[in-house]
Amino acid sequence: MSSTSSGSGPTAVLLLSCPDRVGLVARIAHFIYERGGNILDLDEHVDVEEHHFFLRVSWSLERFTIPASDLDEAFAPLAREFGASWKIRLSGRKCRTAIFVSKYDHCLREILWRHSLGEFGIEIPLIISNHPDLAPMAEHNGIPFHVVPVTADAKQEAERQQIELCQANAIDTIVLARYMQILSPQFSERYAGRIINIHHSFLPAFIGGNPYRQAYQRGVKIIGATSHYVTDELDEGPIIEQDIIRISHRDTLEDLVRKGRDLERLVLVRALRLHSEHRILVNGRKTVIFD
Amino acid sequence: MSSTSSGSGPTAVLLLSCPDRVGLVARIAHFIYERGGNILDLDEHVDVEEHHFFLRVSWSLERFTIPASDLDEAFAPLAREFGASWKIRLSGRKCRTAIFVSKYDHCLREILWRHSLGEFGIEIPLIISNHPDLAPMAEHNGIPFHVVPVTADAKQEAERQQIELCQANAIDTIVLARYMQILSPQFSERYAGRIINIHHSFLPAFIGGNPYRQAYQRGVKIIGATSHYVTDELDEGPIIEQDIIRISHRDTLEDLVRKGRDLERLVLVRALRLHSEHRILVNGRKTVIFD
Amino acid sequence: MSSTSSGSGPTAVLLLSCPDRVGLVARIAHFIYERGGNILDLDEHVDVEEHHFFLRVSWSLERFTIPASDLDEAFAPLAREFGASWKIRLSGRKCRTAIFVSKYDHCLREILWRHSLGEFGIEIPLIISNHPDLAPMAEHNGIPFHVVPVTADAKQEAERQQIELCQANAIDTIVLARYMQILSPQFSERYAGRIINIHHSFLPAFIGGNPYRQAYQRGVKIIGATSHYVTDELDEGPIIEQDIIRISHRDTLEDLVRKGRDLERLVLVRALRLHSEHRILVNGRKTVIFD
Amino acid sequence: MSSTSSGSGPTAVLLLSCPDRVGLVARIAHFIYERGGNILDLDEHVDVEEHHFFLRVSWSLERFTIPASDLDEAFAPLAREFGASWKIRLSGRKCRTAIFVSKYDHCLREILWRHSLGEFGIEIPLIISNHPDLAPMAEHNGIPFHVVPVTADAKQEAERQQIELCQANAIDTIVLARYMQILSPQFSERYAGRIINIHHSFLPAFIGGNPYRQAYQRGVKIIGATSHYVTDELDEGPIIEQDIIRISHRDTLEDLVRKGRDLERLVLVRALRLHSEHRILVNGRKTVIFD
Repeated sequence: MSSTSSGSGPTAVLLLSCPDRVGLVARIAHFIYERGGNILDLDEHVDVEEHHFFLRVSWSLERFTIPASDLDEAFAPLAREFGASWKIRLSGRKCRTAIFVSKYDHCLREILWRHSLGEFGIEIPLIISNHPDLAPMAEHNGIPFHVVPVTADAKQEAERQQIELCQANAIDTIVLARYMQILSPQFSERYAGRIINIHHSFLPAFIGGNPYRQAYQRGVKIIGATSHYVTDELDEGPIIEQDIIRISHRDTLEDLVRKGRDLERLVLVRALRLHSEHRILVNGRKTVIFD
Repeated sequence: MSSTSSGSGPTAVLLLSCPDRVGLVARIAHFIYERGGNILDLDEHVDVEEHHFFLRVSWSLERFTIPASDLDEAFAPLAREFGASWKIRLSGRKCRTAIFVSKYDHCLREILWRHSLGEFGIEIPLIISNHPDLAPMAEHNGIPFHVVPVTADAKQEAERQQIELCQANAIDTIVLARYMQILSPQFSERYAGRIINIHHSFLPAFIGGNPYRQAYQRGVKIIGATSHYVTDELDEGPIIEQDIIRISHRDTLEDLVRKGRDLERLVLVRALRLHSEHRILVNGRKTVIFD
Repeated sequence: MSSTSSGSGPTAVLLLSCPDRVGLVARIAHFIYERGGNILDLDEHVDVEEHHFFLRVSWSLERFTIPASDLDEAFAPLAREFGASWKIRLSGRKCRTAIFVSKYDHCLREILWRHSLGEFGIEIPLIISNHPDLAPMAEHNGIPFHVVPVTADAKQEAERQQIELCQANAIDTIVLARYMQILSPQFSERYAGRIINIHHSFLPAFIGGNPYRQAYQRGVKIIGATSHYVTDELDEGPIIEQDIIRISHRDTLEDLVRKGRDLERLVLVRALRLHSEHRILVNGRKTVIFD
Repeated sequence: MSSTSSGSGPTAVLLLSCPDRVGLVARIAHFIYERGGNILDLDEHVDVEEHHFFLRVSWSLERFTIPASDLDEAFAPLAREFGASWKIRLSGRKCRTAIFVSKYDHCLREILWRHSLGEFGIEIPLIISNHPDLAPMAEHNGIPFHVVPVTADAKQEAERQQIELCQANAIDTIVLARYMQILSPQFSERYAGRIINIHHSFLPAFIGGNPYRQAYQRGVKIIGATSHYVTDELDEGPIIEQDIIRISHRDTLEDLVRKGRDLERLVLVRALRLHSEHRILVNGRKTVIFD
């Protein structure tokens, strides 16, 4: 039934991927149907080169005949038979999200405003920064703000503190909202598929530092921004969302920065929204987005 | 499995809409599964205001246990139970498409070129025009070209001839590729949901004649094109596809016409492609597009 | 020289329109050159149907041989000879801008944030609203906020108060940032070419109330927003800027409102920026934008 | 006066770049004015980092007091004083353009069609290919078609033949319309700023071979095409025009190729149009586009 999750009652979302085979949709739909679940939305995809199947299905739990707390256990045998990676999310449980920032405020500002409008299914228990600059904005929004300075020789210690803070707050998802530090492979692996970054270029063009300057010097006619999951390779993680804006020879480097700000914040919040609604499955270096 | 129909073996596509209820996806998927069908692609939508359900599902007939020719009969009882509108299309049967043109060649040229590349699942048994101008292009492509002059006082007779030609050629779909005549309600009703028009504006702006001149005089900063199914209300049929292009005060009326040509042909061929792949369901004045 | 006004020294901008004739560019450029002015940027346009000439030229006053305060008087004879409408703006003088709002905060929020970044050459001496809701945001930004209730039978009195406030604050430009009242013809004429509105549709589609609902019901595949100067005809004023976003059958009315918010605020601030940099000339129902 | 060159009488276009200084616009406008020229369009730009000035001005020669054939000589002293690079093009002289192709037809087809509509100010005296495949299309359009096979060990000889053909036909501009060979540095230097290539990626992403495959494997959400002048560094020449199209995980590699075709042909013809209207100045690795 209803294709949006904006409805009232409790719902569940299953995200699943497995080697492709016959009958996957029918048997999963049947699993839900025979327990009284009403499918709200179902989308699937097959990577034909890899023979791999991807599914997102959401359903109403209103007349579900087993308790939501038993869902994982009930579904496990089917998933095992399919050799699937999977998780089931219940509508009551919001993504507990930590925002990492440095000094730029535009992405944080955008996230907090939309969060206040209820656009994301997330909670934000804390904001972590290597600088104190954005503390007033956090305070204004009633969100705890932690300064964890990062220096070249004490990076490991800084990440230890960050992880401690995340664990203490049961953080599920981390958003790098123009956080100007590179995370260690250990950190990014620990939160694999759950750290969302915004890079201020149209990846894979202009990897690394100063992408606007690189774009300005190359004389491109279009600039972009890219939101992706962080992996241990810089700017190489699976891309979630990209967008672009047209520029001309009249645009100075400062104009690129100004125009790019709008891309960065819009692309990042779209990615966060997709993530928080459990619409993303990672497929190697790629993503499958069920929007 | 494979989400595209580019695969080798025979496939079927079911397009269905009905009042929404519990179990629709599960039961339809099961119908296919229990007959040995392998679902290639499934997409569904619910209009939450109208409580109406829309589905597109395609499946492989390779190991299907009943003959394709019996499919309609086999599915009919389920459809009846759901109170559904539906049709099943088999991959072997291409849309038999008539192109209606007047003097402008850009849309026809685009369709014929893409058709030659195999971009559409259609056959084009004939082209009908109220002018002889495009006969050489039809001939160059080896497609019969019929001139049916349309005059104010002999419009009914012209439509009679057109319908006769369409029937004689078992035409399923009609594309108005900048055909500069308005069809009668009788004609548009006969082929309801099967006549695709291109209007050279961003509907519902600039309905009727001379939309580029209207746009030029209004001083808009963006122009558009709209492909829609024809109904008996001028330019009010369900919209299939739209696109736009930016203009400025520097653009003359001739520039608008020139830029608009690119929109018209691209928007029209996208609509035709969606139609020929059975990806469109009409929902009152709207369309549901499963792309 | 430098094409942007981001340079350091004092500059002047001339906006001029007049019947087209030979020698306009040469003689105006010469006027500047012979007084020691260095042209930073020059753009011109001719409306070929109306035989009307439009010009924007900015120049550095650094080595100008006459005082800036005498500029108007010095240029007047030439303008008279050309039969021109014209004004000269000096870089020191910012547009004194009043923002009118009702309850929606997204456009005001966007303007105030960018204003704090110095993106506009404006001052905001006051915000006027018919509701008290956005007073805290004004206060947070240190801008006086005036509530002027508007009722059906006391509209004239409300406008009298608004004009009094604008005059007392030497207001030059008024921005309707989702202000949900229609101004009287008297009001809009008094500030002709200086009231910027944002309409939440792709004008001229969906004029008037509830454009998102109209768009939703019509089933368009793209929605838009339009910023224009206010005239005495509702939503018919000269268009400054438009933009669009793609939607699908999956989008509910609420999704349209959410997606449209991003369009509204971005389109409005682009229009305000163009206006504040004196890049807009009105040409009847159209605008000439020198960007 | 008229900002477009669509007018009737003879016109001239001056493209000029030189170190920036005071009075350039005024003195050049005066040069035209005092000889009875009527400026139709003037646009200028300053690269503030490089302190370099760029100008395009077009004017009517209708009442010009010196013969067009004397224009170069008359302007030379001023250009010498400014230390300028410059050229003056007269409206009667069309760019003599050679099209280089291999086997793909979509770009050639698009150019020839628009050429037949008079969209470019060019003549096409010949088409050169390393394969015979597109000979019929050339013949259908009445354009001489020369096959010059290119093999690894006879590349130099092939280029010798190509240059001979170009010289014999007084070729000014070369368009690589998906010509699948890399030109030697000698060749590209000989026609510096006059060879237009289309690369099927959003440069500088996916330089070199198989950009669609690269894009597919990287999992980008947007693909692009780039038209640029050819230099001796592969895909590093000054960019003229770029455009993009959105893709998703549903798109196969074949879909990327299909969607990319539309980008390639539209981006290439836009670049060719800008070039043929003398709207492009090269600025190191960048372009200044006066559109």
